[in-house]
Amino acid sequence: MSEADFIARLRAIATDPAARGLADDTAVLGDLVLTHDMIVEGVHFLPDDRPQDVAWKLVAVNLSDIAAKGAEPLGVLIGYSLSGDAAWDAAFAAGLDEVLGRYAVPLLGGDTVGIPAGAPRSFGLTAIGKAPASGAPARSGVRPGDQLWVTGTIGNAGVGLAMRLGEIDANETCLAAYRRPLPQLAFGQAIAPHVHAMMDISDGLLIDAERMARASGCDITLMIEAVPLSAALLSVRPDVLDTRLAAATAGDDYQLLFAADPGAAATVRDVAAQTGIAVTPVGHAGVGEGIGLVHKAQRVALPVRLGFMH
Amino acid sequence: MSEADFIARLRAIATDPAARGLADDTAVLGDLVLTHDMIVEGVHFLPDDRPQDVAWKLVAVNLSDIAAKGAEPLGVLIGYSLSGDAAWDAAFAAGLDEVLGRYAVPLLGGDTVGIPAGAPRSFGLTAIGKAPASGAPARSGVRPGDQLWVTGTIGNAGVGLAMRLGEIDANETCLAAYRRPLPQLAFGQAIAPHVHAMMDISDGLLIDAERMARASGCDITLMIEAVPLSAALLSVRPDVLDTRLAAATAGDDYQLLFAADPGAAATVRDVAAQTGIAVTPVGHAGVGEGIGLVHKAQRVALPVRLGFMH
Repeated sequence: MSEADFIARLRAIATDPAARGLADDTAVLGDLVLTHDMIVEGVHFLPDDRPQDVAWKLVAVNLSDIAAKGAEPLGVLIGYSLSGDAAWDAAFAAGLDEVLGRYAVPLLGGDTVGIPAGAPRSFGLTAIGKAPASGAPARSGVRPGDQLWVTGTIGNAGVGLAMRLGEIDANETCLAAYRRPLPQLAFGQAIAPHVHAMMDISDGLLIDAERMARASGCDITLMIEAVPLSAALLSVRPDVLDTRLAAATAGDDYQLLFAADPGAAATVRDVAAQTGIAVTPVGHAGVGEGIGLVHKAQRVALPVRLGFMH
Repeated sequence: MSEADFIARLRAIATDPAARGLADDTAVLGDLVLTHDMIVEGVHFLPDDRPQDVAWKLVAVNLSDIAAKGAEPLGVLIGYSLSGDAAWDAAFAAGLDEVLGRYAVPLLGGDTVGIPAGAPRSFGLTAIGKAPASGAPARSGVRPGDQLWVTGTIGNAGVGLAMRLGEIDANETCLAAYRRPLPQLAFGQAIAPHVHAMMDISDGLLIDAERMARASGCDITLMIEAVPLSAALLSVRPDVLDTRLAAATAGDDYQLLFAADPGAAATVRDVAAQTGIAVTPVGHAGVGEGIGLVHKAQRVALPVRLGFMH
């Protein structure tokens, strides 16, 4: 059974409105948001990734979901598989302490299990957050005419992964983006009252924008030349269409994608300035379905692979 | 690193009062209780256990923690590893639907990941509950002089596991206790206002009573001849001390262990009668530390292994 088939089965079970049809970043239960993400060795991280970085990523990817709902994190519960490598486990615990301290998020509980020798490490994290007073923005709220924005830059982590795999020479900015993504908590909380829809970009800008369009019942056109790329990325890749498509289909960005009324653009820029986060308009929503790409006013065919499927 | 060593590291991180020192069944955040338990193939369930039963157990063990805090379950989030066996996954989804329906608990969200071929299945579940108005009873609230009680009967699941392993002839009651434990939600909610401490018995009566005594800073004496054994268990085991010690050190009972003032005994029996749950006084708390066993007024040495360590 594919992941999509299994999720379809779960959707048939998850009929409570709080589940948001399993189609949002988090569940919304009263004024709480709740999310649970797993990471598996060999799938979501490399066996030789530093355990401190694995702990960071486990927490960061969940806090990124909390950020996407404009919520304030209240705590996390961890599911940890002990592999019998004491140094690895100790380093993981140190990384966990570091990332929780950085975001001032308490560890509330969890479970620790031994796993058979040679089995891949598998970790789960549940994060709980307090929704903003204005309500947790859904993915499904985009309105035709909305402007689409992203925070930060896109594609650094994908290049960082290529660096980790030895495919290209390393630079610290892209490696750090892969190893230690930074959930946009402060910006998410500040912008939430001003958006119609918001989600985090975890599997790639194109695939996540396509999900947002589908959830909202509209189409989204992205101007591929507007997608913000970092100087670090452009120092190792030429600024051509292929580079931009690669960046927009790489996963692990953990930036925010949000939709707002075009008339709110000045407010969006004010919030960005106040929180010190770069924001870039990358497209708009229309009446239709799916996503479309334009590059310098020319329509561009969608790549076969829109992002990371796992 | 042993599980105990790793948990000690986590305890050093989990300093927020809501974590209850990682020494209780759940975290308590405002009026919510939160728990996360994992089960791993080959550790917590057998590779040839029925997937419907694995789903049942995953949910039941977490709801048992909610029951132990007298809480009402509000929902669960699942972490699921897809193994590529479509029939297995479909049967698991059917079991999940069944157990959630049985306890009227909504599925709120979660995550699904592919795992490498041959890796053991590993599942996590987070359960969220609403604490009783009287507060969620801790493990640590036992007072010297308290009477200790258990619900139901003890040891059925351990005998059921032996049956599953082909060690003894099967009977349905013990097999069902192993396959489909029944969290004591209704009784837990009803008794919570009347107890000083409560926890669920997941790893064995003796080890869990020892944890309760340690958390409470008192000792607990258990009358081993009073531990309630089922007729089904006694149909395959003789009623001798060894049988009673085996039952009291087997895991997976998911009954409740609670402490109450001896003067509340009539109330405890009333609640039991109203909810249709058997309760049995099995001991008392005193000034001291650790647990002690008596059998027909004779002190009995503690077995080397008090329960299931994992």
